[in-house]
Amino acid sequence: MLAFRTFKGTLKRATKPQPWLRRGWALIRLRLAGICNTDVEILRGYHAFRGVPGHEFVGEVAEVHGVSAAQKQKWMGRRVCGEINVGCAAYGDRAACDFCKRGMKTHCARRTVLGIVAHDGAFAEFLTLPLENLHLVPDSVSDEQAVFVEPLAAACEILEQIEARNFREAAILGDGKLAQLIALALRTAIPRILMYGKYENKLALARQTGCEAYHVPRDACALKRLNDSFVLVVEATGSRAGLALAQQLAAPRGMVVLKSTFHGNGPEIWPIVVKELTVIGSRCGPFAKAMALLESGKLDPTPLITRTFPLAEAPKAMRFAQKPGVMKVLLKG
Amino acid sequence: MLAFRTFKGTLKRATKPQPWLRRGWALIRLRLAGICNTDVEILRGYHAFRGVPGHEFVGEVAEVHGVSAAQKQKWMGRRVCGEINVGCAAYGDRAACDFCKRGMKTHCARRTVLGIVAHDGAFAEFLTLPLENLHLVPDSVSDEQAVFVEPLAAACEILEQIEARNFREAAILGDGKLAQLIALALRTAIPRILMYGKYENKLALARQTGCEAYHVPRDACALKRLNDSFVLVVEATGSRAGLALAQQLAAPRGMVVLKSTFHGNGPEIWPIVVKELTVIGSRCGPFAKAMALLESGKLDPTPLITRTFPLAEAPKAMRFAQKPGVMKVLLKG
Repeated sequence: MLAFRTFKGTLKRATKPQPWLRRGWALIRLRLAGICNTDVEILRGYHAFRGVPGHEFVGEVAEVHGVSAAQKQKWMGRRVCGEINVGCAAYGDRAACDFCKRGMKTHCARRTVLGIVAHDGAFAEFLTLPLENLHLVPDSVSDEQAVFVEPLAAACEILEQIEARNFREAAILGDGKLAQLIALALRTAIPRILMYGKYENKLALARQTGCEAYHVPRDACALKRLNDSFVLVVEATGSRAGLALAQQLAAPRGMVVLKSTFHGNGPEIWPIVVKELTVIGSRCGPFAKAMALLESGKLDPTPLITRTFPLAEAPKAMRFAQKPGVMKVLLKG
Repeated sequence: MLAFRTFKGTLKRATKPQPWLRRGWALIRLRLAGICNTDVEILRGYHAFRGVPGHEFVGEVAEVHGVSAAQKQKWMGRRVCGEINVGCAAYGDRAACDFCKRGMKTHCARRTVLGIVAHDGAFAEFLTLPLENLHLVPDSVSDEQAVFVEPLAAACEILEQIEARNFREAAILGDGKLAQLIALALRTAIPRILMYGKYENKLALARQTGCEAYHVPRDACALKRLNDSFVLVVEATGSRAGLALAQQLAAPRGMVVLKSTFHGNGPEIWPIVVKELTVIGSRCGPFAKAMALLESGKLDPTPLITRTFPLAEAPKAMRFAQKPGVMKVLLKG
């Protein structure tokens, strides 16, 4: 099968055998894959991952192994999205850990992660995942919407971690793809969303979905007036400066949700203590919630798509995705 | 009156007029003051404070101004401790801010802080505070216990911020004065407390009050085995390394209470996101709760006292307080 693997900072075309299936796992034929900033980081060496990247996808089930006829009928040929963390329990040869037993496979210490940790991902004709990781895509949800389920779920994680109804407004720092999805998700539960970003075209996207959106360097004076203003700040800039700004904008005893996993030292963190902030780290999230939001029509992420390339042009797509101002780039299987 | 003020990194003896009283404020004659690490930091330039430091004290009310006869009778001659944050509402010439109106004067942006921000402190024969900041010391609580109310309240703040009954154990990083008081306070609500510190004599103190206590550098291998072990970690080392270690020891979705206000860059903070930790900043706390704990006899901080000096020897006491292994140093008024 056609696949693209990490090679010296870029993607390299490879011909690989179709993956072997464990009991309870599915073979999935790619329909659409999304390129995420994490994929760019992986090419730069993040997680020291060697293999096929890609963890945002929608595909169709081509084969299942070692399951009942009913299960087979449920899944074969159906469109699916898939949770990317595969807990140790899904590898039958290992005893399940406490986290897997408690359903927290995103925190299993021995987990693999699709396209990120020890598990080939979606930039290929076929990929594999345990059936327990899969979510059926309803007919009313298009491929172009479904390919956003993974990052949208990460955005929805915030709604699992906070009591949204307690907040009348939220500030989102960052205007990238994740920040935009967070804005869409929070907008379904919090009346007023203010985005602070750097790119006029991205801020305009947020405004189209009913957010207020402001240019950070340009409105620096306005920002200073906003010190201590927000009871809820979501940091999704991917930078150290973002956390520093989040601490500055958060009200005393306010809450900062942290999404960025930049490497290197953090900023000064005494404001967390002096202002008695609560900082909540937030990572992968609930696929069912994200899929339900798409099905409900309450939000539509497709305006975030800048361009779709055929899978065969993955290296070109990856270069294009890194250009300034580009939002979501897709690969069509 | 005799007072000691900041001067080129040390304390300098000064003769000052007795402070003038606002309406609703009290003049307090010092009985005992405690030297805190913050005082050391202040001498080094923290908060650019110029004046009389000292914010841990027990004293007796020598005068009150502009209050009813009943109030006067309640307070005159009584032993008191005092909350150190003076909100804008206590300065009659200013309109009270939202935080003061909500009773959160510790977060009033225009607050003064006894011996720390724009308000002369307790290293003097007399100090002043609004009556609303004062707490009567019950007869059963000695001066040597009462002088710990301020830092013990800071320790008790943690019990206000977490649901202690949800935790079977807690790790405390640090073995200094604040860490010891935190251990005493948490011990009243959480069955098992494990302290990780550097000084054998300090760890021995913690063991005497029923904590388990371990030497950090010596037990580095043991620590590594503890990665991801604690659902609750309290960071009270005063150092950047402390927060890094706290993130390492905390279990996924665990909680880190942050007490240290070190300056300079923070450590790498991606573990907060990857492990979805909740980091809670924690500062000043409830005096009433601390006083009640002392009165109940559930804890006794006096074993933390290393030595008491007369107020007149404050500079010598300050030098002594900075020697390794020294715990609480007191000044007797």
